[in-house]
Amino acid sequence: MGNQICNRLTSLRTLMLDKNIKGIIIPSSDAHMSEYLATHWKVREWFSGFTGSAGTLVVTLDKAGLWTDSRYFIQADRELQGSGITLYKEGLNTTPTISEFLQNSLSSGDTISIYGEIISVQALDQWRAQLYNFAINTSDDLFTSTWIDRPKLPNSPCYSYDDKYAGESVKSKLRRIREVLPQNTALLVSALDEIAWTLNIRGNEIQNNPVVISYLLIDQNQCQLFIDSAKINTEVAKHLNDNNISTLKYSELFNTLTTLRVNSLQFDPKTTNAKAELSINPKTYKKPTESPIPLFKAIRNEVEIKNLKSAMVKDGIALVKFLIWLEENISSEKVTEIAISDKLYELRAKQPLFKGESFDTIAGYKAHGAIVHYKATPETNATLKPKGFLLVDSGAQYLDGTTDITRTIALGQLTDEEKEDYTAVLRGNINLSRAIFPEGTRGSQLDILARLPLWEMKKNFLHGTGHGVGHFMCVHEGPQSIRMNENSTTMHLGMVTSNEPGVYIENSHGIRIENLLLVSSAGEGLFTDYYKFDTVTLCPICTKGILKNRLSAEEISWLNAYHENVYIKLAPHLTSKEQEWLKQATAKI
Amino acid sequence: MGNQICNRLTSLRTLMLDKNIKGIIIPSSDAHMSEYLATHWKVREWFSGFTGSAGTLVVTLDKAGLWTDSRYFIQADRELQGSGITLYKEGLNTTPTISEFLQNSLSSGDTISIYGEIISVQALDQWRAQLYNFAINTSDDLFTSTWIDRPKLPNSPCYSYDDKYAGESVKSKLRRIREVLPQNTALLVSALDEIAWTLNIRGNEIQNNPVVISYLLIDQNQCQLFIDSAKINTEVAKHLNDNNISTLKYSELFNTLTTLRVNSLQFDPKTTNAKAELSINPKTYKKPTESPIPLFKAIRNEVEIKNLKSAMVKDGIALVKFLIWLEENISSEKVTEIAISDKLYELRAKQPLFKGESFDTIAGYKAHGAIVHYKATPETNATLKPKGFLLVDSGAQYLDGTTDITRTIALGQLTDEEKEDYTAVLRGNINLSRAIFPEGTRGSQLDILARLPLWEMKKNFLHGTGHGVGHFMCVHEGPQSIRMNENSTTMHLGMVTSNEPGVYIENSHGIRIENLLLVSSAGEGLFTDYYKFDTVTLCPICTKGILKNRLSAEEISWLNAYHENVYIKLAPHLTSKEQEWLKQATAKI
Repeated sequence: MGNQICNRLTSLRTLMLDKNIKGIIIPSSDAHMSEYLATHWKVREWFSGFTGSAGTLVVTLDKAGLWTDSRYFIQADRELQGSGITLYKEGLNTTPTISEFLQNSLSSGDTISIYGEIISVQALDQWRAQLYNFAINTSDDLFTSTWIDRPKLPNSPCYSYDDKYAGESVKSKLRRIREVLPQNTALLVSALDEIAWTLNIRGNEIQNNPVVISYLLIDQNQCQLFIDSAKINTEVAKHLNDNNISTLKYSELFNTLTTLRVNSLQFDPKTTNAKAELSINPKTYKKPTESPIPLFKAIRNEVEIKNLKSAMVKDGIALVKFLIWLEENISSEKVTEIAISDKLYELRAKQPLFKGESFDTIAGYKAHGAIVHYKATPETNATLKPKGFLLVDSGAQYLDGTTDITRTIALGQLTDEEKEDYTAVLRGNINLSRAIFPEGTRGSQLDILARLPLWEMKKNFLHGTGHGVGHFMCVHEGPQSIRMNENSTTMHLGMVTSNEPGVYIENSHGIRIENLLLVSSAGEGLFTDYYKFDTVTLCPICTKGILKNRLSAEEISWLNAYHENVYIKLAPHLTSKEQEWLKQATAKI
Repeated sequence: MGNQICNRLTSLRTLMLDKNIKGIIIPSSDAHMSEYLATHWKVREWFSGFTGSAGTLVVTLDKAGLWTDSRYFIQADRELQGSGITLYKEGLNTTPTISEFLQNSLSSGDTISIYGEIISVQALDQWRAQLYNFAINTSDDLFTSTWIDRPKLPNSPCYSYDDKYAGESVKSKLRRIREVLPQNTALLVSALDEIAWTLNIRGNEIQNNPVVISYLLIDQNQCQLFIDSAKINTEVAKHLNDNNISTLKYSELFNTLTTLRVNSLQFDPKTTNAKAELSINPKTYKKPTESPIPLFKAIRNEVEIKNLKSAMVKDGIALVKFLIWLEENISSEKVTEIAISDKLYELRAKQPLFKGESFDTIAGYKAHGAIVHYKATPETNATLKPKGFLLVDSGAQYLDGTTDITRTIALGQLTDEEKEDYTAVLRGNINLSRAIFPEGTRGSQLDILARLPLWEMKKNFLHGTGHGVGHFMCVHEGPQSIRMNENSTTMHLGMVTSNEPGVYIENSHGIRIENLLLVSSAGEGLFTDYYKFDTVTLCPICTKGILKNRLSAEEISWLNAYHENVYIKLAPHLTSKEQEWLKQATAKI
């Protein structure tokens, strides 16, 4: 592989010489700033050999470096072997930033290429500020001619998403968007989940995310969808036509922007690529503005909520069957981490309306559980034994909803530290679940509830406590979040967020307990309305690691009530043997 | 009074006509954006007759309006009687904003006066944006000639603040400030507490705040204090001279800024008045920047911490004597709210190094306790009876520290609601006190700990949970705060903050329990250092309103440990009769 990468970089450098480009920055993004990329857009991966989800490749005529974060230090080190690319570990004091590296490697006035199609307007602005003394070339695509056999963009047919699942018609969604759109202003929508939500369409072209690669341009009079025509079958064509949506070629967006006739164009600088922004007719006023769609999308309507609850029952059934299978097979010492992913897939696939996983299952046994983004490979694949913890974070896409759940399961004997950690994580999860809070509360205010039991032990987890989850859509979505960082979005009735405190002790164990929460009404109070969380995930929480004397009476009663609800909701769908197991697993502590 | 105000507005309008000024905005600020104003600067009060701390007077040639918030609706309504000034209640949907009022009353292009000396750079910027279609006159002082017998600025001598109380020399403070000040840049310091802290000086000229009216200009070579020479006695002259601080006339600041010779001038737009900013030499680069001094000032050194603890013992002694006096006299039904303020003053004044109150005592009996900024007047002064709650919020200035404490005392029988509210407020106070948190935590993350027990009852308080408290300085200071609103300042070791949850039920009762917290080390943990709060206030918390079964074991043990510490610290300074009372008051629950 290393040698192959050298050849790829050589062709890239030949082209750079040709165009008098002294450096190139290759980020890990596509034209829509997606979380999951079509292979066509895995440019950084193709030129570096590094397969992680986050990282930036920088190539000059005589050097090459890859910057990535601590999640990927080991993997990047292995994958970059022999490529001539230096690994720069982000977050270490000794690591130069990319801009320091370029300042030291190049001369003021040199040209650096950052191809505008795969960088957001916001990110390009940041690069321009840091690299103020260089010329930035955003227009030359150095990839298409140097990447031999570059895969085309996917073009499998998409499909319409029935109102019985979406709960709101396209016409109604467009009306709401137009209500917040000023006169004579067009809105460019680039984020794929925003487009799929607005048009009630879904696709199969990106791993885990049922989105459709396209752009959308909305103004008060028309709505134009830029999409490869191969994706539009008769059914979708009718659906779009019924909603007065015209279609143009995907690549036609840039020309359309150049000849735009509205006074202003609104676009989200976080999700719009720089090529689009640079194409806008110079007579049109550019309005970088946060998109209104993520908030609309995050607030679930009654139909979506009903569907979500039904998806949760199905996911719970699959999970109970999985937990029984695990318990029955653990002593055999033949169950591996990969077998767990496969079994979960198999059980979920049997459920009605299953459409795939919502992300790659993380099944980490013992020390592997401490690697937050662990994915078992044939090389690392551990065989489970009846002791210690297994962390399983998994989720599914059903037509009626997206799920995301983590359970940490005691396979046998635990150490005192494991039990203390497990109990603290569980208490954090419960305390966030139990919160009652006034309208106007932000996730950053609630976050501490999930962390305090860990902080009392002087431990913490460095990921977020909660992310939004889409409705048969991306498993990670905004605009709300529950994190230590400030986020000005407040919690609204109908929002769905994960609740996933954890603790990770390197080379020892990892624990995370994750349920999905739905923001619901707690009634009127002094000054304002109050909200609470309904825990919608239905799956027993392993009680073997609990130090009961550490739990308050309220915490114990929350857990018992949760388990009672899990039993009531799932038992009717299980065999009597499974019911018996579930009765045990949800017994009062 | 109403008639007098009419005459004042008539002279103001005569002058406005003279200068072709169609409207004037008179804010409630001085030249230093202070919380407490010298009488000289109570311009809004003199022209309106309204004595509240917050409010803006707007006068046109034929109308006048006063905008103030809900704290002052009743008072303003009374005080504006007969003045011809309309009261505009801020926060109501039907109330026009000042800019709406001016847009409706005046014509585009008209001149509005906002005198630059009493408006901050930041506030003026906001007015300019809102009143973009008017000409803004900031240079004409319409007050001095129309305000008959306007008091002069105070000019009583100031004094140096000994290193044994300050814990850091002026030279060291200036060194630290210069370390963060770029070369060839001067720093203009306008906030009076920042100047007093930097120069280790204190004064007697402003109510409750021991600051000295002055400006300070610091660069790498010199340090200039702009101050009325009458304030500088021999002792202070020597202190300033020893520290290479030159003095100039207070009013000389503006000329000095006009002829400034440094490349850039840094100033805080929140505390610098617009007249100063507009005086800056046009060749000097203006750098509006957050001042570095508030953070330096907020982080207490060891000497300040030792002194604070000693001030707390003295305050605790006075408070215990007060509580005993209250208990002994309550049945007489002769104790009034004003008598309480007087008694507290008398008892504190007997303590060594007492220099006055740190704010006006709030003593609110029953429903008066629900008025957050209540100050008893002869008209409202209630006589206490042996039932219901008395809320007392008070504080002192000692040479060795500033105090701020609230206790809500059950004078006799309580209703169930009063007990539930009291218990929830106490739990909030305890839960914040008990917090352990990693370095880097912001007050907005911790805030919920003080509110959650109230939120669980769907109640809340709308003021902040915690403000910084100065060291023999202003009782309210930044940059840290514990509030629902985001504030990016993180908690640092040595910071002092109040912890004052409350609940206010209109026409019924008000409850607040306030202690001061010192951020201290909890040792190293996973990834980083951990901090905790030491509760430094020493005074029993009334236990009569507590519903013990609502408290967790941890909450009970915190309260018992706190009370044990109060007894240990205070008993040695009390008579045996007082010790006996304190033993009871701090008995384990």
